[in-house]
Amino acid sequence: MKYTVLTLFPEMIESASTESIVGRAIEKGIIELKTIDIRKYARNRYGSVDDYPFGGGAGMVMQAEPVCQAVEEAKNGKEGNKTPVILMSPAGRRFTQTIARELAEYEELIILCGHYEGIDRRVIDEAVTDEISIGDYVLTGGELPALVVMDAVSRMIPGVLGNESSAEEESFSGMWLEYPQYTRPRVFHGQEVPEVLLSGNHEQIRKWRLKEAIRTTLERRPDLICEEQLTKEEKKILQDLLDNQN
Amino acid sequence: MKYTVLTLFPEMIESASTESIVGRAIEKGIIELKTIDIRKYARNRYGSVDDYPFGGGAGMVMQAEPVCQAVEEAKNGKEGNKTPVILMSPAGRRFTQTIARELAEYEELIILCGHYEGIDRRVIDEAVTDEISIGDYVLTGGELPALVVMDAVSRMIPGVLGNESSAEEESFSGMWLEYPQYTRPRVFHGQEVPEVLLSGNHEQIRKWRLKEAIRTTLERRPDLICEEQLTKEEKKILQDLLDNQN
Repeated sequence: MKYTVLTLFPEMIESASTESIVGRAIEKGIIELKTIDIRKYARNRYGSVDDYPFGGGAGMVMQAEPVCQAVEEAKNGKEGNKTPVILMSPAGRRFTQTIARELAEYEELIILCGHYEGIDRRVIDEAVTDEISIGDYVLTGGELPALVVMDAVSRMIPGVLGNESSAEEESFSGMWLEYPQYTRPRVFHGQEVPEVLLSGNHEQIRKWRLKEAIRTTLERRPDLICEEQLTKEEKKILQDLLDNQN
Repeated sequence: MKYTVLTLFPEMIESASTESIVGRAIEKGIIELKTIDIRKYARNRYGSVDDYPFGGGAGMVMQAEPVCQAVEEAKNGKEGNKTPVILMSPAGRRFTQTIARELAEYEELIILCGHYEGIDRRVIDEAVTDEISIGDYVLTGGELPALVVMDAVSRMIPGVLGNESSAEEESFSGMWLEYPQYTRPRVFHGQEVPEVLLSGNHEQIRKWRLKEAIRTTLERRPDLICEEQLTKEEKKILQDLLDNQN
């Protein structure tokens, strides 16, 4: 996977990546990260790439031309380069684990980080193929969202996680939030580890964990539960939990 | 506002903050950022703070004791310190602009970044007062989510944004996604700026922008529209757009 990130803050992308999973995958040669400083395509000697919005209003808007040239550099001047150009934007489709898996299939992603009040709509229409939002909140720029997307996508790429099985065992990879975890010592501030986890009975442990995962999801995020996709066992546990609530 | 971030990767938090809005607010003295390396409370000479999960399974679990001691350091040893202790977790309540505003009211936030497969549940039950998720996807750790929360919260704090009005004019501060923005030049690759924005007629510009914001929201995120909260004008525009769809 190669990520090319177009940004006004290339050092932020690079420094945050160094210590992350992306950084370790770069060292292993599984992932390549390139940043392009949009400011290098500034059209004046002050290096500014923004200007006042037509129609007035607070804030500045990123100009179309520098963004357009940065995208062209990212595409390496290749005609018909089909690499996705993703704008990080609160108006984009909401990022999910499913989208992370979808993006992990590509060999290359170009990620455009917005700043100021926004980007001239004409270059979005012309050069951007996908808009993604990491959630319903307002951030200063697209850099943190770009890092979030790269982290989630990178985990899906074979060889990136040390332990292959970890990628799919956590919350949202399946339907359930995670069950509670415990490690040594057995007693912490008077609280003991649930007995079943010490039993050595793998089937009982599996059942207990599934029930706790379903319980947590039911309590906190019932919207994640898709009844049609439940196994028979999951349906029964869910029904028992619902019966006990009443 | 003071943020204390408990993490295994303090450099990641610090370097990413330097170039961000949080960094500029730190320079201005509006925000204070402290990181605590959980590893300093490791109980062995290898600095490890994780151990195998009771009951088996892939991955490692963060131990209760080091986390507990880091929280105590963050609380400064003060008895009855009511500072929120927020765990970044995919099982937490979903972060929104409303929660960002809520958190901005505090003088201090303690943010705990998970890693590995999770954190021993007993220390969560004992020391954590809030769990927050930035979205339905799996990340390597809580560091990027912590940075996202700090960015969104910091924007809400008076004096942090240069331009006070910007904080409330963007997507999700109100109900609508942003209207399209344009800046110079007037013509880019043959595409002109919409005529109304050049008219100088402020009332027409306001109406056009509102209509485009409503149109974008209707097309992309109809789930954000809360009919009871609409003004008479917004209701009429929405109705017109719906009529034209059919």
